[in-house]
Amino acid sequence: MSPIVRLGSARRWSDVVIFGGVARWVEVAEDPTQDARGQIAQVLSQVDATLAQIGAERTSLLEILVFLADLSDAPTLNELWDTWVPAGHAPIRACVGAALSPGYKIELVIQAAQ
Amino acid sequence: MSPIVRLGSARRWSDVVIFGGVARWVEVAEDPTQDARGQIAQVLSQVDATLAQIGAERTSLLEILVFLADLSDAPTLNELWDTWVPAGHAPIRACVGAALSPGYKIELVIQAAQ
Amino acid sequence: MSPIVRLGSARRWSDVVIFGGVARWVEVAEDPTQDARGQIAQVLSQVDATLAQIGAERTSLLEILVFLADLSDAPTLNELWDTWVPAGHAPIRACVGAALSPGYKIELVIQAAQ
Repeated sequence: MSPIVRLGSARRWSDVVIFGGVARWVEVAEDPTQDARGQIAQVLSQVDATLAQIGAERTSLLEILVFLADLSDAPTLNELWDTWVPAGHAPIRACVGAALSPGYKIELVIQAAQ
Repeated sequence: MSPIVRLGSARRWSDVVIFGGVARWVEVAEDPTQDARGQIAQVLSQVDATLAQIGAERTSLLEILVFLADLSDAPTLNELWDTWVPAGHAPIRACVGAALSPGYKIELVIQAAQ
Repeated sequence: MSPIVRLGSARRWSDVVIFGGVARWVEVAEDPTQDARGQIAQVLSQVDATLAQIGAERTSLLEILVFLADLSDAPTLNELWDTWVPAGHAPIRACVGAALSPGYKIELVIQAAQ
């Protein structure tokens, strides 16, 4: 069995955990003072940065679970998502509304092949 | 490492992503004009159709995460679920209430062995 | 491909499903009459028991998805979590607020290497 690789292992959580060829991580906006559009753009950009960090690409994405603090931000998510997701290589995606920490508009749980 | 197989890859998401022997997909009712009971019956039937599409069976199910728009529909879910899930081969299941797109009563995130 | 191992397979769900070196399971408090602090302590202890059952350790944890009935319990979660999670080997963690079954304060979806 492959070892467990943990990147950015802080007290409370690891930034990325890789096991069995699958990398898993969570993204929330690094700057939660921005509005929903700003935070959505941030987390998509942060996914790109994490993919680069693990030597993967957008086409490696397997699954993204999206939690929105306000589901009425879904059209904004879709607008930014549709220009970001690689044509013909989209992950599966679920998107639901849930309570997030104060100020946060979006939280992603991501799995990618590595 | 195995390749990533994507079925029904549309602009926004793929219908199914298979990697490392695990198939992942999301189901919402194809006809969201039906009530909760109708939508729950639909998504369970849609899971069957997807399992058939990937050459798997109900006994291949590993995990189902259930989001209900109204958690008071859980007894209806359980009633239909209990006659659907294969005895002795049930997946793990979490079930929580979350905001779903207008009209939708249930959203499933599924993982199955393939 | 490895077989699917199911532990505690009841009518509605299995307690644990193991496939491809990954164990998956859901925890809610066995005694939901306790308050949030009591239930959080319980589910963390229950994770320990399940890890022991599958011959794994806290350092085997890959991912924990936390649903809180009331997100204002997050500081209590963090307080108990920080003394529980193994330093340098934390899983990834997402934490959102969602509607849970009456009386339940926390629900966890866990993946661990096995």
